[in-house]
Amino acid sequence: MAQKFVYFFGRGKADGKSAMKDLLGGKGANLAEMTNIGIPVPPGFTISTEVCEWFYDHDKTYPTGLEEEVENNLKKVEEVLNKEFGNPDNPLLVSVRSGAAVSMPGMMDTILNLGLNEEVVEGLARITENERFAWDAYRRFIHMFGNVVKGVPNESFEEKIEALKKKKKYDLDTDLGIEDLKNLVKDYKAVYKKETGQAFPQDPKKQLWMAINAVFGSWNNTKAIKYRKINDIEGLKGTAVNVQSMVYGNFGDTSGTGVCFSRDPSTGKKIFFGEYLMNAQGEDVVAGIRTPMKLTTLKKKNPKIYQQLEEIKDKLEAHYRDMQDIEFTIQEGELFLLQTRNGKRTGAAAVKVAVDMVQEKLIKEDEAINRVTPDQLDQIFHPMIDPKGKKNNTPLTRGLNASPGAATGMIIFTADEAESWAEKGKKVILVRKETSPEDIGGMHAAQGVLTSTGGMTSHAAVVARGMGIPCVVGAKSVSIASKSMTIGKKKYKEGDYITIDGTTGDVYGGGMDLIQPKISGELKTFLEWTDKIRKKAKRSNTDQVGFIVRTNADTPADAKKARVFGAEGIGLCRTEHMFFEGEKLLYFRQMIVAEDIESRKKALKKLLPLQKKDFRGIFKAMEGLPVNIRLLDPPLHEFVPKSKKEIDDLASFSGVSANKIKTKASELSEQNPMLGHRGCRLGVTYPEIYDMQVEAIITAACDVAKSGAKVFPEIMIPLVGSARELEILRDKAIEVAESVLDRRKMRKQVKYQVGTMIEVPRAALTAEEIAEHADFFSFGTNDLTQMTLGMSRDDMGSFLPTYQTEAIYSKDPFAELDQTGVGSLIELAIEKGRSVKNGLKMGICGEHGGNPPSIDFCFRSGMNYVSCSPYRVPIARLAAAQSAVSNK
Amino acid sequence: MAQKFVYFFGRGKADGKSAMKDLLGGKGANLAEMTNIGIPVPPGFTISTEVCEWFYDHDKTYPTGLEEEVENNLKKVEEVLNKEFGNPDNPLLVSVRSGAAVSMPGMMDTILNLGLNEEVVEGLARITENERFAWDAYRRFIHMFGNVVKGVPNESFEEKIEALKKKKKYDLDTDLGIEDLKNLVKDYKAVYKKETGQAFPQDPKKQLWMAINAVFGSWNNTKAIKYRKINDIEGLKGTAVNVQSMVYGNFGDTSGTGVCFSRDPSTGKKIFFGEYLMNAQGEDVVAGIRTPMKLTTLKKKNPKIYQQLEEIKDKLEAHYRDMQDIEFTIQEGELFLLQTRNGKRTGAAAVKVAVDMVQEKLIKEDEAINRVTPDQLDQIFHPMIDPKGKKNNTPLTRGLNASPGAATGMIIFTADEAESWAEKGKKVILVRKETSPEDIGGMHAAQGVLTSTGGMTSHAAVVARGMGIPCVVGAKSVSIASKSMTIGKKKYKEGDYITIDGTTGDVYGGGMDLIQPKISGELKTFLEWTDKIRKKAKRSNTDQVGFIVRTNADTPADAKKARVFGAEGIGLCRTEHMFFEGEKLLYFRQMIVAEDIESRKKALKKLLPLQKKDFRGIFKAMEGLPVNIRLLDPPLHEFVPKSKKEIDDLASFSGVSANKIKTKASELSEQNPMLGHRGCRLGVTYPEIYDMQVEAIITAACDVAKSGAKVFPEIMIPLVGSARELEILRDKAIEVAESVLDRRKMRKQVKYQVGTMIEVPRAALTAEEIAEHADFFSFGTNDLTQMTLGMSRDDMGSFLPTYQTEAIYSKDPFAELDQTGVGSLIELAIEKGRSVKNGLKMGICGEHGGNPPSIDFCFRSGMNYVSCSPYRVPIARLAAAQSAVSNK
Repeated sequence: MAQKFVYFFGRGKADGKSAMKDLLGGKGANLAEMTNIGIPVPPGFTISTEVCEWFYDHDKTYPTGLEEEVENNLKKVEEVLNKEFGNPDNPLLVSVRSGAAVSMPGMMDTILNLGLNEEVVEGLARITENERFAWDAYRRFIHMFGNVVKGVPNESFEEKIEALKKKKKYDLDTDLGIEDLKNLVKDYKAVYKKETGQAFPQDPKKQLWMAINAVFGSWNNTKAIKYRKINDIEGLKGTAVNVQSMVYGNFGDTSGTGVCFSRDPSTGKKIFFGEYLMNAQGEDVVAGIRTPMKLTTLKKKNPKIYQQLEEIKDKLEAHYRDMQDIEFTIQEGELFLLQTRNGKRTGAAAVKVAVDMVQEKLIKEDEAINRVTPDQLDQIFHPMIDPKGKKNNTPLTRGLNASPGAATGMIIFTADEAESWAEKGKKVILVRKETSPEDIGGMHAAQGVLTSTGGMTSHAAVVARGMGIPCVVGAKSVSIASKSMTIGKKKYKEGDYITIDGTTGDVYGGGMDLIQPKISGELKTFLEWTDKIRKKAKRSNTDQVGFIVRTNADTPADAKKARVFGAEGIGLCRTEHMFFEGEKLLYFRQMIVAEDIESRKKALKKLLPLQKKDFRGIFKAMEGLPVNIRLLDPPLHEFVPKSKKEIDDLASFSGVSANKIKTKASELSEQNPMLGHRGCRLGVTYPEIYDMQVEAIITAACDVAKSGAKVFPEIMIPLVGSARELEILRDKAIEVAESVLDRRKMRKQVKYQVGTMIEVPRAALTAEEIAEHADFFSFGTNDLTQMTLGMSRDDMGSFLPTYQTEAIYSKDPFAELDQTGVGSLIELAIEKGRSVKNGLKMGICGEHGGNPPSIDFCFRSGMNYVSCSPYRVPIARLAAAQSAVSNK
Repeated sequence: MAQKFVYFFGRGKADGKSAMKDLLGGKGANLAEMTNIGIPVPPGFTISTEVCEWFYDHDKTYPTGLEEEVENNLKKVEEVLNKEFGNPDNPLLVSVRSGAAVSMPGMMDTILNLGLNEEVVEGLARITENERFAWDAYRRFIHMFGNVVKGVPNESFEEKIEALKKKKKYDLDTDLGIEDLKNLVKDYKAVYKKETGQAFPQDPKKQLWMAINAVFGSWNNTKAIKYRKINDIEGLKGTAVNVQSMVYGNFGDTSGTGVCFSRDPSTGKKIFFGEYLMNAQGEDVVAGIRTPMKLTTLKKKNPKIYQQLEEIKDKLEAHYRDMQDIEFTIQEGELFLLQTRNGKRTGAAAVKVAVDMVQEKLIKEDEAINRVTPDQLDQIFHPMIDPKGKKNNTPLTRGLNASPGAATGMIIFTADEAESWAEKGKKVILVRKETSPEDIGGMHAAQGVLTSTGGMTSHAAVVARGMGIPCVVGAKSVSIASKSMTIGKKKYKEGDYITIDGTTGDVYGGGMDLIQPKISGELKTFLEWTDKIRKKAKRSNTDQVGFIVRTNADTPADAKKARVFGAEGIGLCRTEHMFFEGEKLLYFRQMIVAEDIESRKKALKKLLPLQKKDFRGIFKAMEGLPVNIRLLDPPLHEFVPKSKKEIDDLASFSGVSANKIKTKASELSEQNPMLGHRGCRLGVTYPEIYDMQVEAIITAACDVAKSGAKVFPEIMIPLVGSARELEILRDKAIEVAESVLDRRKMRKQVKYQVGTMIEVPRAALTAEEIAEHADFFSFGTNDLTQMTLGMSRDDMGSFLPTYQTEAIYSKDPFAELDQTGVGSLIELAIEKGRSVKNGLKMGICGEHGGNPPSIDFCFRSGMNYVSCSPYRVPIARLAAAQSAVSNK
């Protein structure tokens, strides 16, 4: 531990600096830095985090010398300000704040006005000639101190103020007069005594030390410990304590307070932007009781202060090399900066600021890439409700924000009608209690989906995210009758307009204007920079230069959309979704209920040309890029009709009796379908299905290649758990493929690969055996997570919330890859697979492929690509570039 | 490759010996060995496996010199016998057989009488003065040669013989006269020509080389390759070819043939035991047309031959040091031995022979332990149908042999009635379409269980095996009405007797006498030897000496039974089964449907004394030994009532409305219950359940310890997937346990442990984190297999058969541990766990704990114990001892 415990800042010079965050905490280091670069910061001092460490190592005592150092530094503050702590005639008041190296809710926050007592308050009233101000400050101080230092419940104080207001028939706190405040101070002191058993401390030094103790004590309270556990914060020494002189914006008409940004936080334009209020405290600006004024007014009314503020703004932005969010106070005509930090901004602003700053030579491209978070980028890539319209429309209800973006259209209650209305050119929102695989056509035709039940992993949510259509699920207050829905007291019928916002979960009545995303201007430049860095990325665990972003797309339309967003191939094309469309579903069902192999083959023969057409469309859309097609994966019972009508339709279509269809359905039903007869198990038991699919893929590839386009089909076998499964199915696939290529004489033009998903833990564990038969591995992390964690996505809703509050899984493992468990299995598989085939192509096609921390994992682990839904492609490009930068 | 290709045996001297199996195959090495020790074996020679290897390495050609060596060895055989190959006046006939180092169905088996042709057959008739014999031999030769060498279908020959018999109105082949046989030979040659396009070869040398080619060719036919794949047979050079002179037991009245055992194969008693027929061929003894005579008759009728045979028997047993199964032929008064091998025997005989041979100083105890297979031991430990009774009773039908042992009793069709009849002292067999968890009480009360549906992993099968009660499942021809069942045309009603044999799957009408197992005599001695070796076992990957066998037992009765069988503790006591009994089920259900935590706690309070009683009983039964108790594991919906009556009962008992109960039931239902809200997830979300269970365990332990008995409770948390889960639940368990121990002042007397199951793949992958919070790991390999393979036991019936024929999983992975996949995960977990806690106790409690190859894996991997159902305990003791011997 250093010999120095306390670090002074004030009058243009500080003991600390920005780089000393570990020792002074974020806030302390920042106050020191601002002081050093000549920003007028109210003077004060920081007690270092090492003192906190010492405090806990020594039974909550302090090192010798600390008291003296605090004393000396307090004296320095007094000298700078020419005030005296505890002197009623010229009192110094201070704030006390905690501040660790990492910002951490759960610790003690702030005590203001410390140093007030019965005498000082009178003095303050005299000096400021503002008795009300003085007593109000004292009242607030007792409340804050009592609550923060001694844990007196807020309600105990609030009761008193409410009782008084009621008695006096006041509406607002500001109605309280001087006498009222004096009485309240009495009451508050009584509350303090009752709750703590002690009188409210009158000695300012005692107040200060009690506050310091409280800050250090808060470092290890339950909330703070839990917060660090959940967020994996380790290795910190403790918190620092910042003691800073108070300045006031409410000293009169030459005082004021405000907030400003060095650029416009919603557009990113380089204009000085802010609001302020004269004779006010910071909280008045926030509370919205008075309407703040624009900085332009300040420029007119007080050009000197404005100019000083503008210079400071420029200085801060140049110094911190980012857009700043600045809090200032004017005390009797003198400007003080209380805080500066990198400003929060919209996605659009983040991109513009980053690109502009590179062009201003303030930052480099590598840095610019880290100035936009993937979440910010995500905002830009979905339709948004026009903020102008939003102001006049309050949401009817809020559900879960299952798939981002806004959508507006006519309400429709069945998937079939959604399709037929959409065909007529109408924009519809599909509203259902919940969706099922049979609704997929309707979901695809709709602008958006709203369900009244289901969670973030419900069918509607998963499918909508996959399709990139906005979706709000679990909107519990939506009650659906046959052709109408009620929200609260409002009733909506088929054809009425609603608007949903899948980014927030809000549901609005009526149609609203939307803003559509586009890639141009700064955004285009920005994404090109990310690609440049991504494509040059090198890693120690693979020879390949660069890292690819593919997309999960099941239709030509999705493929085209993803290509516009920058997708470099398809990483997962799910063939089963194709079977849910129109006549294909009937033939597919006929195949399932077939009573012998001949009738099964007959039905498959009908499907063959239809599948071919599907694949041709996709190959064309992805011309020149690889297209990874997964053979049939879900269990057959997902396709079997359930309703009487559908069963009867199938019976008359297939010639199999309704009773037999029902028997077949019950035979196919499973206890744990996730672990049942699906994936390559279907391929092994019904080889004719995969044969048909492979024939369709290769024939379609030949057709497209014949027109001169380049095609790179990758045939993917799902749910492999043993090398022998893949061996059998790969041999079969090659046999079928070669016979097509021979027939078409296109061996040279069409090069295909056959590989496997790694989604069963056993496949990862035996990856060296499986690699022998695979041209590529694609990690199916949805299933791999389900099996490795033994947790069904559909069923975890009942315990996941508790698991998150108990910090068992702090993140939803289906949203963000569980790197410790599932990740270690993936790393094992990569290592084992490449031990047999150096350079074996590896990628991810689970939903994690669009999640930035998971993308970073994929990058670091040596994979060659990620694949994600079309709307996530730009996010993945950014996330991968950020990984490339941080791994440089 | 050696310079020598062919190895001669004959006249007391052979080129080969027993140790040369790799080179000569098992059969060839054995013929050489017998010759060398002076046994009269018909002379012949063996072409080595290296020739087979050369054959495949060189495009199916032979090395230079082979032909000459075969020629020379054939000459040696001719000289020894003074006969000549192909000479009609004094013909040598030979057999040709394949024989690899490992016995392997799928390869070519045997051709007899090779060397016969149109002239030789006439000569043979002359010399033997038995024309019928000669032509019958020729006919058989053409058939065998055509089928085995040229692949002519058996039916093509059989059609001819059937047509002739029909025409002549013969019943038996033996009715065929000399002319008939001559005609048949003509027909057979025509068949051969038609099917092969070539005339039947007349040159004996050509015949010989065609046969040799066929043997080598059969090494790589599809069947043989598949057999080696399925059985993991690798590293063999190929097959050898054995050419041996023919001897005949049907040359007349001084000839004969027989089979004998050096000890009684059904009891193991040391008596010379066998059967023979004069003037007969080996197949006549087998075919059962004539009744064979006992060896005692031979002793009387031909004392010289008998004495010679007895001497040979003694010599062979002494040489091979095991009970021998010997085939002999007497040709014109001369004794020849054709084969000797270790004799197949019953379980009882295996134990007796092994123990006797140690006492005779023929073998050592270590060897004796390997002389009894676990399967043989298993036979002894279940009630068997008395073989006397079996002879007069043919089975009505056969189902799947789900749980071994025989049971006899009155048919009963519901679990409730099974319980009430059993209470009245009646022995019942529970007959159901299928069973469900609610039937557990009835299953326990029954002698055995018969179901008409379900497979080896159905509920009935799994539970019955766990309980050790005989069970036949999937007996499809059993059709069950309300209170009767029909098998074929026979109808049985409630109270009628049936008998089931769970070892074979047979179902008999009526009651039958059973033989009950007991441990005494040689069996006791034998098991003591296994224990001696097991308890001294050392392994390189653990410091612990010895290997423990525990049992899975949920009741005091099971615990007592297992202790008699040698269990050294309980490895898994499933608490959920306790809740299915009587009033406990009602309280448990009340707890589930409770609408708030208070009513839940109230119901749990009722359960507490009942659980305590359960645990007291188990602790007493296992006094002095560890008892591992798993806290509640299955999802709550398994307990929720389904029938209207049960729902109404619960409604009136709990005061919760029937509608709410139904709603609760549907809320609790899950898509994939295996991966749902169960195991420790219940403990995290409903901590009061585990609290109650821990309180019951520790209180019961105190009660029993107070009486002076030693108790070692182990509290096991199921389904842990993350260290934090275990941390939370362990802390909770310790808190509850300590408070009980403090209250009872028994901290010193009751030492308990808290550990976890490793059954979720993630737990294995993060075992080093989990070990920090665990006193032990118990591998739950049932669930671990389900999750690692992504395969639900309940659902795999639809594809497992295909998976087995396709050699994807050659063994049912739920019966025998998948060592490659699941095993590697277990090894990882052991290594990671012990890296943090050296010597951390590890065991297995899945059903694999009773499977010998899996036990061997557990032993080698460094576990401390296995745990299995009571009836498997002796098998596990033996299997572990065998592992100890082979790892010495």
